[in-house]
Amino acid sequence: MCELLGMSANVPTDISFSLSGLISRGGQTGPHKDGWGITFYEGLGCRTFKDPQPSFLSPVARFVQEYPIKSESVVAHIRQANRGDVSLANTHPFTRELWGRNWTYAHNGQLKGYRTLKTGRYCPIGETDSEWAFCWILHQLSEKYPRRPSNWKSVFRFIATLADQLRHKGVFNMLLSDGQYMMAFSSTNLHWLTRKAPFGKAKLLDQDIEIDFEQCTTPTDVVSVIATQPLTGNENWQRIDPGNFVLFYLGERIL
Amino acid sequence: MCELLGMSANVPTDISFSLSGLISRGGQTGPHKDGWGITFYEGLGCRTFKDPQPSFLSPVARFVQEYPIKSESVVAHIRQANRGDVSLANTHPFTRELWGRNWTYAHNGQLKGYRTLKTGRYCPIGETDSEWAFCWILHQLSEKYPRRPSNWKSVFRFIATLADQLRHKGVFNMLLSDGQYMMAFSSTNLHWLTRKAPFGKAKLLDQDIEIDFEQCTTPTDVVSVIATQPLTGNENWQRIDPGNFVLFYLGERIL
Repeated sequence: MCELLGMSANVPTDISFSLSGLISRGGQTGPHKDGWGITFYEGLGCRTFKDPQPSFLSPVARFVQEYPIKSESVVAHIRQANRGDVSLANTHPFTRELWGRNWTYAHNGQLKGYRTLKTGRYCPIGETDSEWAFCWILHQLSEKYPRRPSNWKSVFRFIATLADQLRHKGVFNMLLSDGQYMMAFSSTNLHWLTRKAPFGKAKLLDQDIEIDFEQCTTPTDVVSVIATQPLTGNENWQRIDPGNFVLFYLGERIL
Repeated sequence: MCELLGMSANVPTDISFSLSGLISRGGQTGPHKDGWGITFYEGLGCRTFKDPQPSFLSPVARFVQEYPIKSESVVAHIRQANRGDVSLANTHPFTRELWGRNWTYAHNGQLKGYRTLKTGRYCPIGETDSEWAFCWILHQLSEKYPRRPSNWKSVFRFIATLADQLRHKGVFNMLLSDGQYMMAFSSTNLHWLTRKAPFGKAKLLDQDIEIDFEQCTTPTDVVSVIATQPLTGNENWQRIDPGNFVLFYLGERIL
């Protein structure tokens, strides 16, 4: 199994605080030692830092923490391998282009019988069930919407029906973003919260780090965070019921 | 205009030395201040570090130099913007999947009349002529070879005919790799050399750095480097004649 971390914000926001919690679980306070990765969106562009090393030992992880990149949309993943070797090709998140957008995806769980799923023109590169499922989702989307759609809520509802089919093949917790929308589908465990004014203090569960968001925000900031397990102990994390999803658009929950 | 740097090797090799030369040209000894990027392959997987900042000021560039990633195939690019804003979406290299491989591409030059080129299912995400041309090449390849081809020399000869068409729309110097093959097509300026035993010393033109490759190689290592302009003063760089290309497979030139 793995852990997921997502962020959706209405202003470019530094995710270092939440990331510190996740990175500890990558081989230190948690068993997810088989690589990690994080994708930051800046407008339509995105960049991914990934490493097959455990995140708590990874020089790339240290760099990302020391050089906070501000982003409106972030997808991160720490891996405990089940299907596929520990290698760069098998390290999440995965990004592919569809409709002229970068789509970034990370999966927590394990699937059976996924090799019968047709992936069309989206060929998996690595050996994971996760990437295969992503390619199948993109293939289904490109078949249903040969041109860029305009009713995005309908698109994400359709993706949820696909995710639900995958959930019945095992465990399928997923984050998916195009840089503006952020979808979180739960199969077993996925939690979220939205931080907005009045901001308060938060304390990480995995490290002795506290932050006062009042000091580093403006009153109009809206920042939502999604994580497999709550990252802080004194905030009101909401669990997504299995089989359900939440959708954020630049920080605000819209579905 | 921009500068390109590529490496193809038969063992995972550190590109720091050549990269130091390139990075200096990103706003310090050269005018290419509008972003830079580098893609490292490790097997079928690859990871890209990119930054819209000038490379000689970029914390990401400093990190990549301090944490040398060993790779068999590297594509790097420093940008002086002509078409498209300075943004992450417009920063090279670009990577897309075709036939279950990651294809990484970087372009130096400028094109006119490229918007009539059909890109099929490969939509550009940014605004550059470069990415548009890449999408057109991928579309042409996927039309000609709907399934993964086996005669790779023929594939690259076909790519060269596409590159030649692009050359007639302006300037089109290109690097293209799938992690094993590395193609360098010249429209105006592109140079290469192969380092193998007996190894000697090399001195950068752009920085006061000298390296003795004898000290950091084994006798069977074969490493080819491709660059817009020679990076060292005491080695025998060969110019690729305009309209021609060279092809490397894991370090060795094969076409």
